[in-house]
Parts: sequence; structure tokens; C-alpha cells
Amino acid sequence: MLAIVKSEKKPGAKLEERPNPKPGPNDVLIKIKAASICGTDAQIYEWNAWAEKRIKPPIIFGHEFCGDVVEVGSMVQTVAVGDFVSAESHIPCGYCFQCRNDQMHICKNLKILGVDTNGGFAEYISLPSVCAWKNPTTIKPQIASIMEPLGNAVYTALADEITGLSVAVFGCGPSGLFTVGVCAASGAGPVISVIKHEFRRKIAQKMGAAKVLKVGENDIVAEIMKATGGEGVDVALEMSGSPDAIHQAFQVVKKGGRISFFGIPTKPVDVNFADEIIFKGLRIYGINGRLMYKTWYKMKNLLESGKLDPSPVITHEFSFKDFEKGMTAMIAPDRSCGKVILHP
Amino acid sequence: MLAIVKSEKKPGAKLEERPNPKPGPNDVLIKIKAASICGTDAQIYEWNAWAEKRIKPPIIFGHEFCGDVVEVGSMVQTVAVGDFVSAESHIPCGYCFQCRNDQMHICKNLKILGVDTNGGFAEYISLPSVCAWKNPTTIKPQIASIMEPLGNAVYTALADEITGLSVAVFGCGPSGLFTVGVCAASGAGPVISVIKHEFRRKIAQKMGAAKVLKVGENDIVAEIMKATGGEGVDVALEMSGSPDAIHQAFQVVKKGGRISFFGIPTKPVDVNFADEIIFKGLRIYGINGRLMYKTWYKMKNLLESGKLDPSPVITHEFSFKDFEKGMTAMIAPDRSCGKVILHP
Amino acid sequence: MLAIVKSEKKPGAKLEERPNPKPGPNDVLIKIKAASICGTDAQIYEWNAWAEKRIKPPIIFGHEFCGDVVEVGSMVQTVAVGDFVSAESHIPCGYCFQCRNDQMHICKNLKILGVDTNGGFAEYISLPSVCAWKNPTTIKPQIASIMEPLGNAVYTALADEITGLSVAVFGCGPSGLFTVGVCAASGAGPVISVIKHEFRRKIAQKMGAAKVLKVGENDIVAEIMKATGGEGVDVALEMSGSPDAIHQAFQVVKKGGRISFFGIPTKPVDVNFADEIIFKGLRIYGINGRLMYKTWYKMKNLLESGKLDPSPVITHEFSFKDFEKGMTAMIAPDRSCGKVILHP
Amino acid sequence: MLAIVKSEKKPGAKLEERPNPKPGPNDVLIKIKAASICGTDAQIYEWNAWAEKRIKPPIIFGHEFCGDVVEVGSMVQTVAVGDFVSAESHIPCGYCFQCRNDQMHICKNLKILGVDTNGGFAEYISLPSVCAWKNPTTIKPQIASIMEPLGNAVYTALADEITGLSVAVFGCGPSGLFTVGVCAASGAGPVISVIKHEFRRKIAQKMGAAKVLKVGENDIVAEIMKATGGEGVDVALEMSGSPDAIHQAFQVVKKGGRISFFGIPTKPVDVNFADEIIFKGLRIYGINGRLMYKTWYKMKNLLESGKLDPSPVITHEFSFKDFEKGMTAMIAPDRSCGKVILHP
Repeated sequence: MLAIVKSEKKPGAKLEERPNPKPGPNDVLIKIKAASICGTDAQIYEWNAWAEKRIKPPIIFGHEFCGDVVEVGSMVQTVAVGDFVSAESHIPCGYCFQCRNDQMHICKNLKILGVDTNGGFAEYISLPSVCAWKNPTTIKPQIASIMEPLGNAVYTALADEITGLSVAVFGCGPSGLFTVGVCAASGAGPVISVIKHEFRRKIAQKMGAAKVLKVGENDIVAEIMKATGGEGVDVALEMSGSPDAIHQAFQVVKKGGRISFFGIPTKPVDVNFADEIIFKGLRIYGINGRLMYKTWYKMKNLLESGKLDPSPVITHEFSFKDFEKGMTAMIAPDRSCGKVILHP
Repeated sequence: MLAIVKSEKKPGAKLEERPNPKPGPNDVLIKIKAASICGTDAQIYEWNAWAEKRIKPPIIFGHEFCGDVVEVGSMVQTVAVGDFVSAESHIPCGYCFQCRNDQMHICKNLKILGVDTNGGFAEYISLPSVCAWKNPTTIKPQIASIMEPLGNAVYTALADEITGLSVAVFGCGPSGLFTVGVCAASGAGPVISVIKHEFRRKIAQKMGAAKVLKVGENDIVAEIMKATGGEGVDVALEMSGSPDAIHQAFQVVKKGGRISFFGIPTKPVDVNFADEIIFKGLRIYGINGRLMYKTWYKMKNLLESGKLDPSPVITHEFSFKDFEKGMTAMIAPDRSCGKVILHP
Repeated sequence: MLAIVKSEKKPGAKLEERPNPKPGPNDVLIKIKAASICGTDAQIYEWNAWAEKRIKPPIIFGHEFCGDVVEVGSMVQTVAVGDFVSAESHIPCGYCFQCRNDQMHICKNLKILGVDTNGGFAEYISLPSVCAWKNPTTIKPQIASIMEPLGNAVYTALADEITGLSVAVFGCGPSGLFTVGVCAASGAGPVISVIKHEFRRKIAQKMGAAKVLKVGENDIVAEIMKATGGEGVDVALEMSGSPDAIHQAFQVVKKGGRISFFGIPTKPVDVNFADEIIFKGLRIYGINGRLMYKTWYKMKNLLESGKLDPSPVITHEFSFKDFEKGMTAMIAPDRSCGKVILHP
Repeated sequence: MLAIVKSEKKPGAKLEERPNPKPGPNDVLIKIKAASICGTDAQIYEWNAWAEKRIKPPIIFGHEFCGDVVEVGSMVQTVAVGDFVSAESHIPCGYCFQCRNDQMHICKNLKILGVDTNGGFAEYISLPSVCAWKNPTTIKPQIASIMEPLGNAVYTALADEITGLSVAVFGCGPSGLFTVGVCAASGAGPVISVIKHEFRRKIAQKMGAAKVLKVGENDIVAEIMKATGGEGVDVALEMSGSPDAIHQAFQVVKKGGRISFFGIPTKPVDVNFADEIIFKGLRIYGINGRLMYKTWYKMKNLLESGKLDPSPVITHEFSFKDFEKGMTAMIAPDRSCGKVILHP
């Protein structure tokens, strides 16, 4: 089969012929229909410090994808041949404390698809059946391929109350834009989107932002305070990983409010525990992955009811052979893209 | 001033001249702009068994209303002259266990406006300031007059998770119709509305019901099971008080699901604790009133963001002098009305 | 092997020779060390209407037990040969909505050990590995054999806040007595135990009841109101299944309070939704089984820390060959027993 | 009356004659029976940088105290002359968003007794009635005087689940020691206490610590991991404000665990959001004050049931005239004291 492979410990990747995978008794063999590029994939492609430390070539990468089940292992009960599935990228061990406490998504022995194992930028993948999510047949492959990152947004927004609350979403990558959409679909209001790249302003608006503020153009804190009558927001959702955004989130959230942190800063951030957390009486959630499978069921209903439409975030589609164009779009300094889809 | 008064222990009511009320140190004097008729008011008007037992004429009734603050008592800090306010109808004592535990709305010594005290079917009312909710000036009086019953719907729906969940709403009175709207605005899906009166089918659809089922026409349980792929709903919201609806709610809710009971049955209902509650592992909430003021803040944001529009439920408007027309519409056997507004 | 078998559709049971079970790839073979008799087992023995309907002889019954793992199937990862385990009696399918939503214990396709499958009144059992809970080696077999019913009590008490709250526990069977102990260990107070059988008064006291009230001797509602300064309890835990107790629970719980229902009434119970649930603003939980495995982890810590000691509830121990003595103790009208343990 | 007064912007304080306070319509006049010294009081006495910035002499300080109600304002309903009360030190405005959202304790316009207003190191104080908590008459004045700091511990521990969970409490000031006691009383286990001062080891043990680890003597992280079988704790409660403790809390808490931060660091702390919060999937609570009055009701039940006994933390008692001895004990470098009580 053809697969996009990181074969060497240096920048770049290659579309290569690789042997077809063989599913074990608890696995399902999937014929990929569409995959999407995560920021993590771009980092593997670029070969930054994180990739150097974490990735062991050769590896097929890619962890956001969907496809048809073409074979199932002997013990598999959750899906059947012919099912159209999306992949959960977190592979849980199934027996640690977290796995036995409704927290498989942060399993103590967690492996990540396409990072710790061969991933989905390929014609076929053998997927542990615990990671297979059966889609309704009505969903388009492009949408099915982004369920994993969309699930991050759903979990981040719904980690605590959101309906009827004012929200600031920091970050305009696909995660931030999806989150704006989930908040709007959930009855949050106003939903204020803080963006960095002009290209994404329109997408944020289409996703339902009542107000879009741009870093370097607006005084983020002052504008959010003004937009909330001086009260600040009930909820801040940090999807960017920027230290500035982290401090702004602390500043604009109300006393007694909530922050969910999803974006990964590259370095430690100085936190003033007294003023930023303790006197504010905050609730803070670290968000990694998606609940398996509470988040997925909610996402399914949000999509099927038509309340949530993530399609404005999808801006580019390429075939596997043009995957470098996708990578180039993802790492362009002006970020003039949203989500990039690859087709086998 | 003019007021609609229940003066005798028998059916009917009269528009009479009454002395203007005088606010005490913790009260605000409100010039009423609009009031709406609750089912309770219709019962007081009709003088049923409940009214006979509870109401002590003479009393000005009406507990859903809005108006302008024209005078404030010496201790009042929450609102000022000129503010446009809606009334919370639950008058808490302020010092019981419930009041000191975030549950003022079910105060141990609770009094209800227009039931235990003079109400809002009048030109003026003296309202305890704890019951005054300041509206944005942009809201129309008709909408401001229905905040109290709309708040019931907001609290019922948001008493636990709702976003991304399937919901069945039983009952098509204004409470049921409002609840359909709140669920739809909150990203629930599908939202299935169970109605009894044909007139309200269109309103339920306008409020966002994905499916409307009619008692006597559809097999309610079978249709809900079918619409949810045999799973049942995540959430059932019982707004009718009908024993049939109560049992249907128990039947259609999933194992591990949630029911909120708001509708008041007139008689005890036989419950099969084993099959209806225990083996199902249900969470059940009794809902009375609205959280003071968590619910109100959420409702404000839902309205201001445009996510929730209750106006399709408002079907009739009359002046005080025609109040009997409003009562007649409310008690018509075919229920060919939604919410009825009265103007002074 | 020897096993206690329900071989015919009539009262009684027999200790018989049966073939040793063979574990499948996901099963573990357990050599039983101790088992305890549940009320359900007594019903199977007596052959009441429920048993007639549900049980299909021949079947080895018993679902509360512990033992040593002597063989594991090829796919098993959670336990190993030599581990000392207790059994979870709820066998989940692993793929239904509930199983994928942290609710395995109320799986849509739930099977119960010793009811739907062969159980643990035997020398050996083949147990699905998902139902094996590894004990610390320090725990005594008697205690390890009652983890399943003790888990019911832990889940019932901890289904919502309990620390620092006043509690009434209705029922003095082992479940009720265990629950008294869990409440006391959790810092609830006062813990009021409502009993029916005099023999169990001392056990309730040893388990930590601050007050014991006896049906037919005390005015239950009046005494609970008095003991709580007229406020009622924050939490009522119904472990008896008695309709009287159900109504008393509704009466004595505060407005805004919580009730967990665990006891199974034999018939429907008339509930006054208005006064018993809605105006009270109650939260109600139906409790069946135990969370898999949140409840078990908490139970382990409660036992290991010495905060919870269930041993006063264990009153009788017999060998398998004397199992009829155990059954006789369980069904004696004066209930002059607590938990009865059987040893192979 | 006599009062301990901070009269000048420099170290020290004086016992002076001051006019008796006059209660307003919403106030109660209290004759102080006992007061206790908070770390904050010691900072005011020492006159550190925080005090310089925040305190405006002359002021009577002290905010932990109890006494008898000797006069009530005309609008007061919660307490009566003769009641024995403790003081809540957070004075809420009553009308801000937080006050109307069950968060009076972090009121937007919060004032602190003895910091922003005259406090309780005096023979009398005029206390806003919203801050008066009526004690049972059976409670000793020493215990009643420490309800405010004990409430911090109760709120910190009970901000989320605690029963049956493993806990590490960082800090051995009175707040840390009280927290150990609350955790033990709530059925947490094991409760691991991390101390800095040898004097407090025995107190931590008396309060219920299963293990006491000492900074500089034990490898805190390694010992906690060992004590929890390599899993880490379910809950970390940070009561010290030490940056080292903050990082240790992040390290020892399990993936999916909870941290409550109460201790106030003097400077910003570098946080590795990726590894310390996000990948761990933590829930974090900033804790300031106590819930008004949920926390107080739970504390009352914990004390009355005998589950929680804070008396081992009380190590010194002085009369007002010897208040400097109390201050000296509080600021001694070896911290050879627990809570210090002052009597008028």
C-alpha cells in the first residue's frame, strides 16, 4: 500500500510503498477514505525539537482519519465489516487505574496513533477496535476525518457548564475555530473569539463568534471586559498555547469562573497563583484528548442535529501524492489555511 | 390604581380600583408594563379545588410581569429608579437553611407572589427587592413579562447536562414549548416534543423541535425509541403533569439517563421503582421555580445572544379591561393559545 | 467439583458434583475461598415469584465471592495467576451505549453472575476478566467475599455529597447496615439508622449509627425531624424496598435534599410527585450495582485506611455442606442474622 | 472598650481603649469571647510588604473570633440577642454577580473583616448580620473562635470528591493541619501530611495523618509515589504557598486527579502547563474563604458528630493583654505552635 512515511530523523517525509498491515484479534483493518493534518503532523514533518525527542522513524504518521472496515479480528464486537468509522487517536491499555476509572483517554500507558504506532496517512491501517468509532453513513468523509480534533473542542467546551454563559476562546487554529463552533452550538453567549491570523477572522465568524478580536490590533483584555459589561467572561477556553493568551484568560475570566487549558505552551509560564487562581476562586481543567466515548456521542448528536457544522474550517483538500502541498499550507507563516484534508 | 382582583371564593375575578401599594425599606415600587397569565392564574380564576384550598380572597393575582422601578426602599441596593425589571415570583425568607444554601427558590418559608401576597395584575406592585431582576433596556415588555415561566424551562433543561444529548419534552403548554426552545438553543438533539393539542404543533416546530409527536395520534414510546435508534433518549423533561407522560418518560429514557419533573400531577402516580428508577440507574430532579439567580443570568445570555427566541409562544395580547378574554383563551378545551399577555 | 445447584423449578437446592469450568480467552479461572449469601440467593432457594420468572435451572447460584486466580485466558491482562480476587457480579457486554459511557454496571445487555450464568457457590468458577477485582493480600477472605454488596452501599452513599451531611438510612439488611458504616466512615452526621429487626440494632450501632429508630416502636418521621432540629435530613438512603420507608424518606428529606433508592419494592408505590418530589426540589438516584470500578477503588481505600470495617455485619459462617443452615438463617422471620458466609 | 490596634504604619500593635461600636440596621453587636490569630494578623503585626500595601491604620485587626450577640439592628432576622456566634470574615456586597450566583465568599466588592474594616481583637464588634453564624451552645469558645480558618480547610477538602480517595496535604500551618483532620474525618485514605516544622508532626498525626513526610528529611515525591503503589494520589491539597510544594503537588497527583490551591505564594511560580496540567487532565480549584454557608453547615455537622476534632491544633492561649506573646509564638522561626487563641 501507499503511505506517507517519516523515514529519517530530519525534515520532510515520503510517499512510499509499504506492506499492508495485518489486524490482530482485537484490531480492525480500515481502508482509509480521508485523513486530516494535525499541527502535530506538521511538527513531525518539520522535525522540530519535540519530534526529535518523541518520534522514532521509520513511522507512518497521521492520526485524524476515517475509512471503511474491511476486516475485523476474532474478538472484535464493537464494529463489523462494512462499517464506516473514524479513529480515536488515544490507544488505552485497558487495565490501568485511569482505564478502570472512566479516563481511558489519559491512560497511564497511553499510546498515540501515528506518534507511537503507525498512523493513518496510508491506504490501510490496523486499528485497535477500542479506537474505532462507527459513524452514521450520512456523514461525509471530510467531516468524518476531523472527528478527533473536533472532539478536542467538544470536550474542552463541555468539560463544565457552557450554555447561557459568556465565553472567550483564545486561539484560531482549527482547535480554536472548532471550539467557537461548539460554544455557539451549545447556547453560550456571547462567544468571543481571539485570533492571531487575519485569514481566520471570517471562519471564526462563520463558526458563530459574536465578536472577533485580533492580537496586535485589539486590546484583548479591555475589549473583552467591555463586551461583558465589565464583568469578564464566565468561561475562558485556551486553545493557543500562547503565554500571553494564558495570562489574558486569567485576567478576563470572572471570579468563580472556569478556564479549560488545551493549547500546549512550548515553555513554562509564570503564574501568579494568588491573583490569577486563588483569589479568583477559579475552576481549571487540563484537557487532553476526548472522553472515550462520552464526547463522541455528544459530537455525533451535535453534528446530526445540524447544530454544529465544522465545514467552514476545512479550507484545503489534496490527494496523498500532493501531501507536501498540505504540509506547506499548514506551516505557512500567515496561517492562511484552516484544516487540510488528504485523500488516498 | 386598577387591579385584577379575586374578591370572592368563587369563579371569576374583577377589575377594580385599589389603593396604590407603599414599598417598605427592602421593597421596590414597580409600574407594571406587561403581565402574562400562568396556568395557576387560570386556576384561581376558575376556582378549582387547589385554589379553594390555597387562595385567601381578596387578593390581586398574577405573578408573571415586568415594569419600571418608580420608587425604592431605603435599604435597596440591587436596583434603582428607572430600571426596567422582571419579577421573580418566589419570595424567600432569607434566613432559613435553604436560603443560606443557594436554594432560595425553594425557601422553607417560601411565599409566592400573587398567591400568598398581592400580585402583578395591577398598575403598580410593591416587590421585595430580592425578587427584582434588572433587564437590559433592549428587551420588549412582552418578553420581559414571561421571564418567570421561561426561567422554569431554562432551569428544567439545564438542571444537568443537555448539550449534545437527545431529549424528549412532554407537554405543550407554554412551559413545554419554552423548554423545547431552551433545549434546541442549548445544542440538544434530537429534541422530540410530545404534544396534546394540535394548535401547538407549529409552535413546537418553531421553537426547534426536530420531531413532534401527538398524544392519541402517535405511539409515543414506540416513535421515540425509533427516532433514537432503539436507544431511548438521554434526557426526558416532564412538563405536563400527566400520569401517562410520567410513565412514558420513564420508559423512553435510557439506562443511566436523566428525568426532570416539572409538571404537577393532580393525583398520586403509581411508580414501579424497580423497573422505572432503580434498574435504570436514573438521575431524577424535582424542579420548582428557578435558581435565584443562576438561571436568570443564563436566560439573559440565551436571549441576548439570539439563541433563544420565545416569541412564537406568545399568541394573544389583551388590555387589562379585556382580561376575561385572556382567561377564556387559557381555559378553552382545545388550548388554541400559547402565552397570553395582559397590558395595563 | 462441588457446587450448590438449583436443579429444579421448586424450593431448595443441592450440593452436587459438577464438571470444572474451562475459561475462555477473556476469562479467569478462580478457586473459590469464600462466598456470601445475598437476599437474591435466598429467593432462588425459596423459589418465589421473581425466581420462577427469572431463573432457568439447572444453575449454580451465588454471586458474592472471592478466590485465587489459578488460570487466565490468553487475552487477559488485568489479573494474573496467583492474584486474590473478588467478583463484580454485573457482566457487561462491552459495546453498548452504556458500556461506552462509563456505565458498564447498567449495561444494556447486562448479565448477572449466578442468575444468568453459573455463579460462585462452587469450588471453581470461570469469570469474565472484566469482572475480576484484584484484592490486596492483606484482606481476609470473609471480607473479600462481601465486596460486591459492600460496593452497593459505597455507591449508594457516595452517589452524591455525603460528608458533613445528615443522613437517614432506611433498612437493616446487610445493605442497610453496610450503608450506615459507609456514611459514618465518610464523615456524615448524624447518621440515623431505621431498622425493623431488633437483632440488627447492635450491628447498626457498631457500624456507626448515631441513632437507631425501630419500625413499630418509634414514630420514624417525628423522631428524625426532632433529631435534625426540625430541618429533616440532607440525605435519605432507601435500602429496604418497603413502601412505608419510601414515603418516610420523601417526608424526612429536606427541601433541596437527596434520596438514593436501592431497595426493590415488590409492587408499584403511589408517589405524590407534587409534594414528594417537585416542590421539594429533590435529587433522586436509582442505584443498581456499583460503578466499575470507581466504587471499588474507593471501597479499597476505605477498607485499607481502616475507616470502614464491615465485619460486625458478618454473623454466621458455614461450610458448603451446611449451606442449608445458611439459607435457613437468611430466611428466618426474625432476621436474626447479618451476612452469612459459606466456605468451600 | 479595649482593642488591639494597628495604629501606625510600622511593626507592632497596641492594646488601646477605643469607643464601643454602634451597630447599623443590618448589623449585630457582639461581645467577643475568644479570638484566634491568623497568619495574616501576624503579617499585619510584623508589617511586611503585603501589609504596607493593604492596611490603612488605625485599624483594629483580627478576623477569627466568636462571641455573644448583645444587640441586633432593626432589619436583622438571622440571629437574636443571646445567640452565640462565630464570624465569617468575608463581607459580601449582596448585589454583584458573584453574590447573586452562590459565590458571596468571592464577592466582586469583597471586604475582609479586620483588614478592610475594624476586626475582632476587641471587646466588642459590630458585625454585618450576613457574617454571623449561630453556633450550638455546646461548642467551646476556643473552637468557635477558629471556625473561619477551619472552614477554609473544610472547603478546600470538600471542593470535590474526597471520601475513599488518597490525599496529600502540603503545609503544616493550622490550615494544613485542619485539612488533614477534615480529610481523615471524610473517609479519605491514605492521608499523607507533608510538613516543614518538626513541632507539627505530632499534631498532624493526631489529626489523622496516616503518614507524615518532612521537607528536607524525606524525598517527598518519591515517598508519596511509594505510599500509593506508584500511582500517585487522587487529590493534592496545597495549603503552604511554597513553590516547591506546588510543583510536588503537580508531580504526585494522578492523571485525572484534583488539586486545590489555598496557600498563597509570595511570587509567581513557573508552571509547565503541558506536563503539569494538560497531559495530566487535572481539575484544579482556587480556594479563597468558605462557601457562605454550605461549608459552615457541613463543618457544624462534622464537629457535632465528633468526626472532626480540631483541638490538637490549638497550642497556646493568652489574654488580650498578653497578645504580644501570641504574636511572638506565631512568628517564631521554628513554628513551635499551632493555633493561638486570645481571650478578652
